[in-house]
Amino acid sequence: MSEREGTSTARVAERQPLAGAPVARACVIGASGYAGALAAHLLWRHPQVALELVTARTDAGRTLDDLYPRYRVPLVLETLDFDRLGAAELDVALVSYPHGAAAPVVAGLRERGLRVVDLSADFRLRDREAYSAWYGEHGAPDLLDGAVFGLTELHRAEVAAADLVANPGCYSTAAVLALAPLARAGLIEEAVVDAKSGVSGAGRAATDATHFVSVDENVTPYGVEGHRHAAEIDQEMEGLGCGEKVTFTPHLLPLDQGLLASCYVTPTRPLDGDELFGLFEEAYGGERFIELGRTPPGVRDVRETNFCRIGTAIEPRTGRALVFAAIDNLWKGASGQAVQNLNLMLGLEEDEGLR
Amino acid sequence: MSEREGTSTARVAERQPLAGAPVARACVIGASGYAGALAAHLLWRHPQVALELVTARTDAGRTLDDLYPRYRVPLVLETLDFDRLGAAELDVALVSYPHGAAAPVVAGLRERGLRVVDLSADFRLRDREAYSAWYGEHGAPDLLDGAVFGLTELHRAEVAAADLVANPGCYSTAAVLALAPLARAGLIEEAVVDAKSGVSGAGRAATDATHFVSVDENVTPYGVEGHRHAAEIDQEMEGLGCGEKVTFTPHLLPLDQGLLASCYVTPTRPLDGDELFGLFEEAYGGERFIELGRTPPGVRDVRETNFCRIGTAIEPRTGRALVFAAIDNLWKGASGQAVQNLNLMLGLEEDEGLR
Amino acid sequence: MSEREGTSTARVAERQPLAGAPVARACVIGASGYAGALAAHLLWRHPQVALELVTARTDAGRTLDDLYPRYRVPLVLETLDFDRLGAAELDVALVSYPHGAAAPVVAGLRERGLRVVDLSADFRLRDREAYSAWYGEHGAPDLLDGAVFGLTELHRAEVAAADLVANPGCYSTAAVLALAPLARAGLIEEAVVDAKSGVSGAGRAATDATHFVSVDENVTPYGVEGHRHAAEIDQEMEGLGCGEKVTFTPHLLPLDQGLLASCYVTPTRPLDGDELFGLFEEAYGGERFIELGRTPPGVRDVRETNFCRIGTAIEPRTGRALVFAAIDNLWKGASGQAVQNLNLMLGLEEDEGLR
Amino acid sequence: MSEREGTSTARVAERQPLAGAPVARACVIGASGYAGALAAHLLWRHPQVALELVTARTDAGRTLDDLYPRYRVPLVLETLDFDRLGAAELDVALVSYPHGAAAPVVAGLRERGLRVVDLSADFRLRDREAYSAWYGEHGAPDLLDGAVFGLTELHRAEVAAADLVANPGCYSTAAVLALAPLARAGLIEEAVVDAKSGVSGAGRAATDATHFVSVDENVTPYGVEGHRHAAEIDQEMEGLGCGEKVTFTPHLLPLDQGLLASCYVTPTRPLDGDELFGLFEEAYGGERFIELGRTPPGVRDVRETNFCRIGTAIEPRTGRALVFAAIDNLWKGASGQAVQNLNLMLGLEEDEGLR
Repeated sequence: MSEREGTSTARVAERQPLAGAPVARACVIGASGYAGALAAHLLWRHPQVALELVTARTDAGRTLDDLYPRYRVPLVLETLDFDRLGAAELDVALVSYPHGAAAPVVAGLRERGLRVVDLSADFRLRDREAYSAWYGEHGAPDLLDGAVFGLTELHRAEVAAADLVANPGCYSTAAVLALAPLARAGLIEEAVVDAKSGVSGAGRAATDATHFVSVDENVTPYGVEGHRHAAEIDQEMEGLGCGEKVTFTPHLLPLDQGLLASCYVTPTRPLDGDELFGLFEEAYGGERFIELGRTPPGVRDVRETNFCRIGTAIEPRTGRALVFAAIDNLWKGASGQAVQNLNLMLGLEEDEGLR
Repeated sequence: MSEREGTSTARVAERQPLAGAPVARACVIGASGYAGALAAHLLWRHPQVALELVTARTDAGRTLDDLYPRYRVPLVLETLDFDRLGAAELDVALVSYPHGAAAPVVAGLRERGLRVVDLSADFRLRDREAYSAWYGEHGAPDLLDGAVFGLTELHRAEVAAADLVANPGCYSTAAVLALAPLARAGLIEEAVVDAKSGVSGAGRAATDATHFVSVDENVTPYGVEGHRHAAEIDQEMEGLGCGEKVTFTPHLLPLDQGLLASCYVTPTRPLDGDELFGLFEEAYGGERFIELGRTPPGVRDVRETNFCRIGTAIEPRTGRALVFAAIDNLWKGASGQAVQNLNLMLGLEEDEGLR
Repeated sequence: MSEREGTSTARVAERQPLAGAPVARACVIGASGYAGALAAHLLWRHPQVALELVTARTDAGRTLDDLYPRYRVPLVLETLDFDRLGAAELDVALVSYPHGAAAPVVAGLRERGLRVVDLSADFRLRDREAYSAWYGEHGAPDLLDGAVFGLTELHRAEVAAADLVANPGCYSTAAVLALAPLARAGLIEEAVVDAKSGVSGAGRAATDATHFVSVDENVTPYGVEGHRHAAEIDQEMEGLGCGEKVTFTPHLLPLDQGLLASCYVTPTRPLDGDELFGLFEEAYGGERFIELGRTPPGVRDVRETNFCRIGTAIEPRTGRALVFAAIDNLWKGASGQAVQNLNLMLGLEEDEGLR
Repeated sequence: MSEREGTSTARVAERQPLAGAPVARACVIGASGYAGALAAHLLWRHPQVALELVTARTDAGRTLDDLYPRYRVPLVLETLDFDRLGAAELDVALVSYPHGAAAPVVAGLRERGLRVVDLSADFRLRDREAYSAWYGEHGAPDLLDGAVFGLTELHRAEVAAADLVANPGCYSTAAVLALAPLARAGLIEEAVVDAKSGVSGAGRAATDATHFVSVDENVTPYGVEGHRHAAEIDQEMEGLGCGEKVTFTPHLLPLDQGLLASCYVTPTRPLDGDELFGLFEEAYGGERFIELGRTPPGVRDVRETNFCRIGTAIEPRTGRALVFAAIDNLWKGASGQAVQNLNLMLGLEEDEGLR
């Protein structure tokens, strides 16, 4: 693969912190955005995966260190070049491109035999019409059938066997984890998800909406007439036997990393707090990355971790079930879950490199 | 009234910005908290009301300038002394005490003939049992019947005639303004209010919860098993003919002033966006302090103002009505609305001193 | 001037809050940036100046309300058209263009007889070489000699008589106000200005540096090898008889509006706290917009005001004089001071429209 | 030691992440404050040290998890009991008490043979008079002579051999690391340190100053007539042969963790950028926790790490040397450096448990 200054050997920095021979050789395609850069950071310090290559559509030639000092990854960002990619003998790729741009790149990687976790929306929706309604024509429709929706806790076995995992959106991750136990039990009569996200969820692009002055001392709902993650939520809820459409509204908050899904469920029959909590214990009792409680979590509790922290309660006045799920939108909502999925695909401990 | 250094004349600072003889002579009882200090600031620069006295239970002897430089009110905080209060020939009082502590003080002021806007919860709930369930025994139950719930836009005529106005809670103000047009039209099947407030809403007390480090980069639901403002919301919703209990959950945000109520209403029959917006135009078209739109507001849009800015939409996937109401919790949610009510009581323009 | 929908009369919105016939008819050229928009807001509610026109290079056709809801100025942004400008019979202009772009526009306005307060750097430096060193070739050098540096408290008489006022930079305003009393007394042996600014000072352009995620939880020095405001500081310090170069380093802070200049002066002879404070009382005792104290100010104390709040102290261990000056960078550091200057030019009270 | 529920065995939680037999058994005395809790977090996941006990003066009986969910330390906070402490066979202690309270506790631990890193100020100042001037009478003066000032990079050998290390203050750490290369070379004619800290530096106590509303949108200098860390800076500067007193002023910023020391040095002779940078390369070239650059760092670059990131420049206009040092005040400024020192004392790799 190409490198700054015309040399063509893969850049392998000196301090690769591997313990023994790596289980897999990895690349991050699109490492200059927030999710891609964190994915590179996580793989760079992963004890069993060797990060061999990072690419970017912009900023090629600069080091990741230069763009993201806090991640301390000294690799040079390269321009993606499929010809050279083959020679690098890579096994797996994490792709962090915008939707639409991801599909053809994923196709190219799959053709060359790499197993892929794609962080875009391109392979999340099994229904092609739903995809085109939200995103336009699909760039690699043949791959859709083989793609697995990588909400790890719900699709662990499929993820482990998959060659292409569609990593879920940050909102979908929190909302579906919060609703799944109730949905599976047929207990959802109506559901409202009021979601709140830090600004990193909006990506690295400098826009009016991400300008500090727009966000500071503010909170704003957006996408109120339809947000794309709603399609993912609907798909998963249907899969869980819950045909009811869930109201979903995201809000932008003056913080960096963190996402809270506040879920309000009118149950099909009266529930008390013990039964409600019991459903979640049953569903997630053995999960390494899910923390359960009876008090609501704050997003700070999960900052810079791959945990999803869930608190449940019954509102006495109305009997509605309240479920609050907090994640770090860049970790469990993106790159952390991508590595969690990658670990499963490679037969590693699920929390390798994420502890 | 008493003053620092033993003098007993009412403190009248030199730069009182009055235009002509004042319509009323006012005091703020409890001016050292956030709402009381803002009330003093607003009255200090009010063109037709003379602020003659500010009192505080703590910090007496210090100037408001010293505690709140940005409000630029040079008055000395005094200890409340009913004997001297009579001599000062005051007409009106804004009381900003904690619930429980307010009732006897309001009673004392009423006995001495002052008309009162009380910012505490003590006179908001007409139902004594509801009051005791949330707050304990009432300190001045005889005054309850004469008190008017001061959500100005809903109770304008009663406020104008009242001697005692119970200024609504910040959450109730936003939530009820957002739901009232739908409630009145009998259109609410179910309703969820997910409310988000800046930290000034939690008051000036330094606690673990208000410590910068607890709030920064965080968002936390609280009061999930019952928040006291729910009782106010229920009371007002019943008054509007909407028996259904509204789910209400507040969240604490990393910002100073601002409150957003995100309201999700399952309508009793299908509604489209025009009909929804029309209901709000009809209800609030002539209101000076309500701004309507079809895009959701941000709390920054109303910061340091008495406006309530409301945006409405129908969620296409579910048909639910979404109503977002943004206020500044210290202004329209507390002291601004208190002055708005005071203006009505004095026969002044409703926005006098609030422009 | 042109207007949306093809009509050509100057847009005069319905709620112009004037008391009697206006003293002057004004326009804001470049009202879509932060400083220009605040200037429009201040003039829109100015009791003696009629804001007749707002223009913008981008966003023409939109209302200011649309761009800046919190300013509540309903005027439509127009494209600047000198031909029509003449017909509008305007008296004064506030120009808020980037440096370089401002000079020719100011020249055009002056040719048509308008008195101008220019918020750019184009007319701040009397020394043409200094200007070109920092900014390149000057677009209207003939106007340089007549321009007055509008640091109001230092150049009040010249401002009142000027037809062209060069409004100072935000950093220069705070730094020079903090150092002037010491400079004038010949007491500065060495001086260091460590300045800290909120993000609005960086302007409305969405860049990597103004992205919320770049600023949040961060503080960064910038311009360390030379910031353009240093030239203004040097010019003013020389004018005050202080040939010593002042070290000046700005820092970007995670806040919106506010600027603190922390000034460290090694005095030419020992000073005590009383003498130090006395110098400031003597210099600024009668100033409406300068507040003095012996404790350091916070920028929050002056937020959304035109005040410069100054605190002085002597560091016992070293004998150095410490002077801290806090302003709101958009008010006293830009548009507030521009209106203050405009008031002087029009013979009005200096704080008209700024109280 | 005592434990909740009346059992008396030392609490050893189940998930202790040790690799092999521990090199040392540790306790954290005072683990309920910010620094103590982080120390417990770092030791809990330290691969070669077993954290056996955490104590607190308040909150005993609660788990650290309960107080600090994000640290994920399940240990129960106990009340310090020297009798039981002996039975626990502990080797080392990190003490995080307020100054004054720390000294007798450290004495007690030393008597029982534990090696101690003390995070308070009690053993930082070798000069007893300097100590009493700032802090009052010393509680364990006999231990002063044996205590080593634990600024690791400057006193590595002494730290390794010490039984009692006085961990430096956060401000001292950044300021002295920034000035040491210039001081050692005799190049400091005058020096000003303008330091900026996040709120966690002020500790966990809920006060007016740490209330979110006081800090948000604000920046405030404090301790301007003398801050206690100045004594530490003076002591270290004298040790480096720099008799000149350094001006030092801290500021409180609206962020959580992070500290920037902006240092302005008038050199004794002209310096250029290369020579300046060379001094730092020479001093810190081999340091694991110091990162050098020629652009100024942001505190975000070192957030949640033990790095001190230093940028140097010469200001062309004045020739002054600018040195900016960024640390995380809780890591390199407190608990991170404490673990770094502990590692040295135990003969471990300096960055064990800190990578």
